[in-house]
Amino acid sequence: MSQMEVRLKVPDYIVDLIERRGQVGQSDTERMALAIALAAENIKHGGGPFGSGIFDMDSGELIAPGVNLVVPESCSLYHGEITAIIFAQQAVGHFDLAAVGNFELVTSAEPCVQCYGAIPWSGVRRVVYGATCEDVEAIGFDEGPKPANWIEALNSRNIEVIGPVLQDDAVAVLQDYRAGGHPIYNSES
Amino acid sequence: MSQMEVRLKVPDYIVDLIERRGQVGQSDTERMALAIALAAENIKHGGGPFGSGIFDMDSGELIAPGVNLVVPESCSLYHGEITAIIFAQQAVGHFDLAAVGNFELVTSAEPCVQCYGAIPWSGVRRVVYGATCEDVEAIGFDEGPKPANWIEALNSRNIEVIGPVLQDDAVAVLQDYRAGGHPIYNSES
Repeated sequence: MSQMEVRLKVPDYIVDLIERRGQVGQSDTERMALAIALAAENIKHGGGPFGSGIFDMDSGELIAPGVNLVVPESCSLYHGEITAIIFAQQAVGHFDLAAVGNFELVTSAEPCVQCYGAIPWSGVRRVVYGATCEDVEAIGFDEGPKPANWIEALNSRNIEVIGPVLQDDAVAVLQDYRAGGHPIYNSES
Repeated sequence: MSQMEVRLKVPDYIVDLIERRGQVGQSDTERMALAIALAAENIKHGGGPFGSGIFDMDSGELIAPGVNLVVPESCSLYHGEITAIIFAQQAVGHFDLAAVGNFELVTSAEPCVQCYGAIPWSGVRRVVYGATCEDVEAIGFDEGPKPANWIEALNSRNIEVIGPVLQDDAVAVLQDYRAGGHPIYNSES
């Protein structure tokens, strides 16, 4: 077996977009507008129609963005929420964001079963989502076998869940993606 | 925001162990013995007490190993199952293992909520586990809000689940980990 190494970086087009937009406001709608803009930009570059950001709830700072890179990076893990968590934990140098501060995850669509499962270990204290599962499944994606009581399950671990926020704008990006004939990449299993 | 890049590689000590052991047999117990050996080796190098492998069910070949690198790599995603999926998908060049063949995940312990959620998108057709959730939680780890019907949920997506296999050997590694005073790294959220 040869040595295996995987590299994951924030795409240049995402860094550029964030720099162009400048400081992000403190409200849920302003932060969601960024997550949705990341999703829209990601589509233009071959990624999936999902964007996220992890913010420091105290300073208001964007710690890390995330976009769906499943197809471009050949990895089913790389949903927008997951790439944001990976980059944010690297930025703070800790596997548990809750150990170093108060952080929230803002994501353009409701987490699927995988992202739901990753949230308790990430250390985020708050999740804000845009489009709902139904919106995501309406364009053909599969959200998976997530428990019906997922919000209560996160709440019981001291993680607040807010949404939908800017749902119409988030849905518009999903529908543009479908209209563009981009890949709906569910597993064939 | 500066450019962020994350690198993840199969640790040298894991490559060395796999080379030393040579060809892995086709039975569940032979494959589980490798996953457990990876877990034991990982502890010696500062990783968590969990090891995995993804095997091609047709050729019998080990496609990729995985070990828990949460603490050494500062990333809550990097459970043994997750790192195995990331490396295996890179090895085959596709985000969906089911699109390119028949693959199984052999893991030294029952998947937690995060790994449960990642399995449907990975494209593995079969999961074999060693220690149970109860065994893992007995040493202080948290398996998270996984649905009670997780096996049926995966079965309904054509993913077979087998276990426990070599449970006593898998539990012995967990108990060595606890006895060694190594970190139990649940989130503080």
